[in-house]
Amino acid sequence: MKVKKKGKQTVLLKNPPTIISTAAIVGPKEGQGPLGIYFDEIINDEKWGEKSWEKAESKLMRETFSKIVSKSNIPYDRIDYIIAGDLLNQCIATNFGIRETGIPFIGIYGACSTMGESLGIGSILIDGGFADNVICITSSHFCSAEKQFRLPLEQGSQRPPSAQWTVTGSGGALLSANGDGPFITRITTGKIVDMGIRDSNNMGAAMAPAAADTILAHFSDTGLTPDYYDMIVTGDLGEIGREICDELLASNGVYLGGRFNDCGLMIFDRKKQDAHAGGSGCGCSASVFAGFLYNQLTAGKLGRILFVPTGALLSQTSVQQNETIPCIAHAVSVEVNFRNQSQG
Amino acid sequence: MKVKKKGKQTVLLKNPPTIISTAAIVGPKEGQGPLGIYFDEIINDEKWGEKSWEKAESKLMRETFSKIVSKSNIPYDRIDYIIAGDLLNQCIATNFGIRETGIPFIGIYGACSTMGESLGIGSILIDGGFADNVICITSSHFCSAEKQFRLPLEQGSQRPPSAQWTVTGSGGALLSANGDGPFITRITTGKIVDMGIRDSNNMGAAMAPAAADTILAHFSDTGLTPDYYDMIVTGDLGEIGREICDELLASNGVYLGGRFNDCGLMIFDRKKQDAHAGGSGCGCSASVFAGFLYNQLTAGKLGRILFVPTGALLSQTSVQQNETIPCIAHAVSVEVNFRNQSQG
Repeated sequence: MKVKKKGKQTVLLKNPPTIISTAAIVGPKEGQGPLGIYFDEIINDEKWGEKSWEKAESKLMRETFSKIVSKSNIPYDRIDYIIAGDLLNQCIATNFGIRETGIPFIGIYGACSTMGESLGIGSILIDGGFADNVICITSSHFCSAEKQFRLPLEQGSQRPPSAQWTVTGSGGALLSANGDGPFITRITTGKIVDMGIRDSNNMGAAMAPAAADTILAHFSDTGLTPDYYDMIVTGDLGEIGREICDELLASNGVYLGGRFNDCGLMIFDRKKQDAHAGGSGCGCSASVFAGFLYNQLTAGKLGRILFVPTGALLSQTSVQQNETIPCIAHAVSVEVNFRNQSQG
Repeated sequence: MKVKKKGKQTVLLKNPPTIISTAAIVGPKEGQGPLGIYFDEIINDEKWGEKSWEKAESKLMRETFSKIVSKSNIPYDRIDYIIAGDLLNQCIATNFGIRETGIPFIGIYGACSTMGESLGIGSILIDGGFADNVICITSSHFCSAEKQFRLPLEQGSQRPPSAQWTVTGSGGALLSANGDGPFITRITTGKIVDMGIRDSNNMGAAMAPAAADTILAHFSDTGLTPDYYDMIVTGDLGEIGREICDELLASNGVYLGGRFNDCGLMIFDRKKQDAHAGGSGCGCSASVFAGFLYNQLTAGKLGRILFVPTGALLSQTSVQQNETIPCIAHAVSVEVNFRNQSQG
């Protein structure tokens, strides 16, 4: 059988899915940021009426899932798969968030790259004819993430300037075999890149080489150049990681210029909001994609984007054992118009 | 586009992948069990020369991966994807185990159902024409799992008879678009089932309803009856879970009889080895599949099996917060001969 892959890491979709609907629910700090008006709902406090941060994160995913479905006009029983994951140990935000749905479930873990991984698998299920409708969704929560990965919030520890702020939020999308766009047209699946960074308070630096690796693979595999896209938007490199990624790309002759953006830099106003090097977490790229970017695509303000969620595959145990931080990034092309001739 | 799904949860593969090669490396206790002769390597101690159990688990996966490739005759650079996961927080056994491969990586989390999820996604990538060669692999480790999910081993806590013994081992398979079988012909993706069990020392009881749900969906979706298969083999229900699953199936008019087996019951000699209710863990179903079951299929002793890895989607945090245990099971049909007419 002829493989649809082009180059080593990129798949070209011949029957690309349409993104039928999206939804994002975020925390209070995220709601006060510059993208606040694009989110479907802003919760008032980090517990959202639940007894724990973890249960609140599950509720974020549960309610975001409901909003995606209700905005789509697709009957609930015609959703074939949910593909989802989060940052918590054993992905419990997801497992408890979607356990009542009764929909076949594919659990994934890609740290903060999870939204890219989810959109990739979902697109393959639809393009390959295995599904008509797939929901891709992720979440993160500042308090549950700090508690698990770093130090108890109650301790009030000082965070270094290179640290990032995990976004409280959930975002997701319903992909469908039928629709008029925006379409997911290409998927570049990342490989693990570990350049030896050990500082879990500097994840932007750790993730930048993985982001650059996937972006370079995308252009090498497809023969496209950066000017094909209106925006190339990484997940959560933050200020430090974005700069390193830009340098790594330039040293390989790829210049993104003003079209390079990062969800972690977009979600907070870093002059007015204390978010250190920028936002991070599964919910960062997911909510910026489902809220702002999808809006800009459907409003005709963006025609083509390359969405590149970035993930740091560390755990508290690996940090305690003095391991380095393996990282990964997955790239997804989203285009308002699907032109088959561009598929080579 | 015509969806290939038949019924709600099952995909029928028209261009089913061949399982080209498998490998399994297990711990000393597993090596002393009745399936010992079927494993590629038996390690002498649980640390295998590493400084921690977690690093030893990564090594198990790394070395198993190498064996799968070297047994396959497929050149390393023609492997398109690795699909892998494990039980550790943030799947670090996998992330560190395969970080040097440079192969596009899809990280998954399905607790002990991970091998089924991995074979399912891998088969879809090949059947849909997105890949030629995919490696599906998982691992678990008794010591790292006890430390993380239950109590420090040094404490020497007494375990109740319903507790299961996490298998130390890694198992995996290389799926290829080209080959003469055994073939993966059908995939039934499970949904989360949570019947309210809270006891993390009785995961067999928690997982049994999920296993029964997926097995019932498989037969309902495909129109097949249990006698189509020579063996229907769950992942790690153990003694208690197997009995409950059998009862649940019978109450729905489905009788598996003597063809019902469970990897967790097969891997240890429960009369001679102290494994309580049976084996468990990602590495249990993976190593039994890659070791014993694949051998029986290629030796002509089994013609068709339904492989149903089962997973308990709990975490230490969810247990401490008095949550119930959501569970899931994914079913994969493996057949020595692929007969297209049987695909309806």
